[in-house]
Amino acid sequence: MKSGGPKNKLADDLYQEMQAWPIFDAHSHIDPHRPTSRHFDEILGYHYYTELAHSAGMPAELVSPTLPKNERVRNLFKYLDRLDNTVQYEWLSEITQTFLGHEGPLDLASVDAVLAQADHSHDGQAWDEKVWETTKLEAVFLTNEFDDPLEGWNRTRYVPCLRTDDLVLKLHEPATVERLKKASKMDVVDEKSFRMAVAAIFAHFVRCGARACAISLPNDFVPRPATPKRAAYSLRRALHGLDLNSDDREEVRTCVFWMLAEFCAEFRLPFDLMIGPTRNSYPAGVAGGRDLFDRRVSLAAYHSLFNHFPNVTFPVSTLSPDAAPELVAHAWIFPNVVPNGHWWYSNIPTYIEQDLRARVQAVPKTKQIGYYSDAYKLEFILPKFNMYRRILAEVLADEVARKAGWTETSALEFARLVLIENPKRIFPAVGGV
Amino acid sequence: MKSGGPKNKLADDLYQEMQAWPIFDAHSHIDPHRPTSRHFDEILGYHYYTELAHSAGMPAELVSPTLPKNERVRNLFKYLDRLDNTVQYEWLSEITQTFLGHEGPLDLASVDAVLAQADHSHDGQAWDEKVWETTKLEAVFLTNEFDDPLEGWNRTRYVPCLRTDDLVLKLHEPATVERLKKASKMDVVDEKSFRMAVAAIFAHFVRCGARACAISLPNDFVPRPATPKRAAYSLRRALHGLDLNSDDREEVRTCVFWMLAEFCAEFRLPFDLMIGPTRNSYPAGVAGGRDLFDRRVSLAAYHSLFNHFPNVTFPVSTLSPDAAPELVAHAWIFPNVVPNGHWWYSNIPTYIEQDLRARVQAVPKTKQIGYYSDAYKLEFILPKFNMYRRILAEVLADEVARKAGWTETSALEFARLVLIENPKRIFPAVGGV
Amino acid sequence: MKSGGPKNKLADDLYQEMQAWPIFDAHSHIDPHRPTSRHFDEILGYHYYTELAHSAGMPAELVSPTLPKNERVRNLFKYLDRLDNTVQYEWLSEITQTFLGHEGPLDLASVDAVLAQADHSHDGQAWDEKVWETTKLEAVFLTNEFDDPLEGWNRTRYVPCLRTDDLVLKLHEPATVERLKKASKMDVVDEKSFRMAVAAIFAHFVRCGARACAISLPNDFVPRPATPKRAAYSLRRALHGLDLNSDDREEVRTCVFWMLAEFCAEFRLPFDLMIGPTRNSYPAGVAGGRDLFDRRVSLAAYHSLFNHFPNVTFPVSTLSPDAAPELVAHAWIFPNVVPNGHWWYSNIPTYIEQDLRARVQAVPKTKQIGYYSDAYKLEFILPKFNMYRRILAEVLADEVARKAGWTETSALEFARLVLIENPKRIFPAVGGV
Repeated sequence: MKSGGPKNKLADDLYQEMQAWPIFDAHSHIDPHRPTSRHFDEILGYHYYTELAHSAGMPAELVSPTLPKNERVRNLFKYLDRLDNTVQYEWLSEITQTFLGHEGPLDLASVDAVLAQADHSHDGQAWDEKVWETTKLEAVFLTNEFDDPLEGWNRTRYVPCLRTDDLVLKLHEPATVERLKKASKMDVVDEKSFRMAVAAIFAHFVRCGARACAISLPNDFVPRPATPKRAAYSLRRALHGLDLNSDDREEVRTCVFWMLAEFCAEFRLPFDLMIGPTRNSYPAGVAGGRDLFDRRVSLAAYHSLFNHFPNVTFPVSTLSPDAAPELVAHAWIFPNVVPNGHWWYSNIPTYIEQDLRARVQAVPKTKQIGYYSDAYKLEFILPKFNMYRRILAEVLADEVARKAGWTETSALEFARLVLIENPKRIFPAVGGV
Repeated sequence: MKSGGPKNKLADDLYQEMQAWPIFDAHSHIDPHRPTSRHFDEILGYHYYTELAHSAGMPAELVSPTLPKNERVRNLFKYLDRLDNTVQYEWLSEITQTFLGHEGPLDLASVDAVLAQADHSHDGQAWDEKVWETTKLEAVFLTNEFDDPLEGWNRTRYVPCLRTDDLVLKLHEPATVERLKKASKMDVVDEKSFRMAVAAIFAHFVRCGARACAISLPNDFVPRPATPKRAAYSLRRALHGLDLNSDDREEVRTCVFWMLAEFCAEFRLPFDLMIGPTRNSYPAGVAGGRDLFDRRVSLAAYHSLFNHFPNVTFPVSTLSPDAAPELVAHAWIFPNVVPNGHWWYSNIPTYIEQDLRARVQAVPKTKQIGYYSDAYKLEFILPKFNMYRRILAEVLADEVARKAGWTETSALEFARLVLIENPKRIFPAVGGV
Repeated sequence: MKSGGPKNKLADDLYQEMQAWPIFDAHSHIDPHRPTSRHFDEILGYHYYTELAHSAGMPAELVSPTLPKNERVRNLFKYLDRLDNTVQYEWLSEITQTFLGHEGPLDLASVDAVLAQADHSHDGQAWDEKVWETTKLEAVFLTNEFDDPLEGWNRTRYVPCLRTDDLVLKLHEPATVERLKKASKMDVVDEKSFRMAVAAIFAHFVRCGARACAISLPNDFVPRPATPKRAAYSLRRALHGLDLNSDDREEVRTCVFWMLAEFCAEFRLPFDLMIGPTRNSYPAGVAGGRDLFDRRVSLAAYHSLFNHFPNVTFPVSTLSPDAAPELVAHAWIFPNVVPNGHWWYSNIPTYIEQDLRARVQAVPKTKQIGYYSDAYKLEFILPKFNMYRRILAEVLADEVARKAGWTETSALEFARLVLIENPKRIFPAVGGV
């Protein structure tokens, strides 16, 4: 075991057992054409490290994309000791140990060794395969733009997922409309043709084995059926690249989002909702490290959506850690609301632990998706899942001690459901591959 | 001990000691004419089981009230394994063991045995007595509609409590006005006669031994003194069954609520506030399983109420688990605000534990009401109180370990206060019986 | 060790080590002319005891400032057993043991002994020195009104801090304007002269060794650059004692607050933000025990401030315990946002523990300020810091067990940073003394 293990015998047994299981990862940002890193900069360039180092005093320029990769890595290494208390540093440490064979701290004395150990520029797909095997990865979902051709990789391993932020939140940008026309090969000019184009996108994704539609939504978004005439007008303006006032923009995102939910129902795709980020809260930050959230958000804003689409499953992730209990309550009441992993600012051991205890105690076990990696490179999947599996082992060991009638077997059954069986069933393979 | 016990020796000792104590349960929905179940359907029909099974995939029709009881039970049993991780299942399991003598899982293989063991159709009050004794129940508060005659039962055991949701939130429905006229034997036509009618209701309840007035309030309710003329106008329209616009409805609920607080002061009744449910959030749900909450609620909305009625005690329950710390702070400042139990979506071990630690560390011990069952059948009181007493034992054992000068005796004194002495003193027997 | 110690060997070792360290306390309300108490009433008069006793049933008159000190103490002692479960009572208990040599409970049987033991009316500065030494105090920050002459004490020990609530929130009161004129020796009549006066105040404070500017802000405050003309008009009205409508008041507090941030940048002073109190929520309470908060507050309201002043460090304290995770996320992204201690209603062991785990796991270790006492008398600094150091020891011991590569040395390094080195570096000595 590469990291500190669970605290007691039963927890440790549970953890060891889970270590032998395959990983089924239902949300990531992996590039299927380049799933692993060839240079340590692709590991250390993950926004967690650049943003934490910047937050701890590193000027953003020191990791500018215009700098040579080695220099970016060396610059960042100077600041790593300021954040070696964080869980993100733990992931990094586990990666360098497991995949690079590097022991000891990550500091300026070790940077050359690490750069050399991480150099896979000549290893090609063999390295991808090595990481895949070590991780015991079974499948990983991607995040594909709506105009992704979805070609050139094994789609059983790298499962397409239709990401729709641009359609909903950036349709006022002419480039988005152009991309839609090109991807759908249609002349998109009004609501009717827009709907046909989106249908074509869905059909293409499902044909290529997509198992989910996904979107991240800001905290001021409230789903509702659009006002038909008003929406058609605003949508037409957007599609023709005309100016949109704030009411028009609201109308466009509302009507497009609702339409996507209709297509999820029609194509039997679950609709992943990732609720809460406030984009560009800190514009001077490093790339990927500029977003935050406003904690004043409530799932009450989503009741009409959940009620209107009983046949669409909504795996939900919320960003504000203090909003977690509300998701527990919604998953306990709505058949189509599924608590989905532990996301971003909530993906911290103590927040996961608190939330997980509540899910174990209050949400039916067949409708929980335990974890997803959200990773950009395969190397991160194992340490992130290990972090989760360690917490899960400890929480379940406590439940076995507390609950009459619960045994190690019950705990393992629960773990297998939330880690493997539920995500496979909840994101069914509805179309081709 | 029927369920998994506390984790260490001192916690176990504390728990065993509490097990010997009587239970004083200051909030329930028990029907005093039929306090226990005669058929297992009355146990399993509790909304927690139907809603969790429905949330886990059971069609609502399978527990329709039009179906025969045995069929409803059999239908639900098919889904119980999907929720055997929940604390609600633990209550069920403890009930079948303690009261029905049933060991082992609750599955299709055991459903006939359980149905037979739970058949008390011929046992009458002897069974009520048996459950009462096993539970060591001393008294349990009811939830009585304002027009309940309060007759036909032992009111020292089954203590009346005046529930006022209908008066405040449904006065625009003619049926409510009719019920009020009938119950008060008065011709209720305007504010003055309405006030007299409500006074008569309070007098009747207090004469019959009521020890609390109670109401559940939605998260958009803000108590305030009514605008006299405006309120009188809107109230008169309501009493005459005329149409009310949304301002009128707001005026009516505001003015009636404030009037109830005035009567609580006059009749020296504590006013239980249960803050937060959003009714009918999921209309397609099973009966009792349609309500949720909006987490954006604050007790700051209640400051004018707490300030205006210093002589009314307000035992407060809040629904959103993340709102718990605010209640701790309010109970620490306002003499008339009392944290009351752990309610509904907050009645989950991990939420109780977090909140309880804060109450033990920050709220004077003489003004906490530890727990109430909220039960519909007597059988649920014991497992629910046992769940709470187990957590209380563990939290207090930790405090003994942490606090200089705290001993097992201090812990037991605290436990006895919050479980028995405080609720008895805070809900005094002010009138007759 | 005076209080219950940590739960395991490593935690105990860490705690013992920290006990040997000096204390650097970056926020208090100590009066440097009278830093310790001469009479037990000055200990027991701390608002926590009067407000908790009042909340538990003590009439506010029993601790009226018009009563003799001995009588106030005797009155309060009658109610102490109602709150001997609270952490505030623990502080009191540790004070009486450590500084007064009093063992045993604080009750009516012991009140005379305690009054005698606490009588330092003839000990003068020798007693101050004794408490200072016993506490191993290195420095403690004060809370100085803007017109404080800052003279008559050792400013290396008692570090000035410019408190600006009155300038921002009470400039509509003529007394504030008079004080400003007097302190700045300027004729303050418009924005320009106001700015010069405030500059003079800053210059004076920095010359006298001030290391921070501080303010507490209500939950409805949203920082923004002022509208120039509008603000100048409203400010002029305020400075001339003319009536201000609510828009004018908003304009004044907005423009003065922003100006203070500009001066913090210019004078290189960190700007302590203490966000959340709702003043006078319970007007009938005891002195100091009338404020609460509205939990519906978000740091999202402060993004423009944090973005506009990248060179100002903002140590932030938030009042609502459930808002803590948002501060963790903001400290992780914004280089100039520093999580600062655990404040007031959040200063309860269980809330500290939850929040501290997250800070240890997600915020770079070099930018956390662990704790400050907020004390009014030196005697409180030791028990409050001991409470924090005990929790810190336990949390760090858990991290050592959990984290691969973390040792006792890593834990002690973390502790020394957040307790001593970070506050010294983050609040630099920029000016004279």
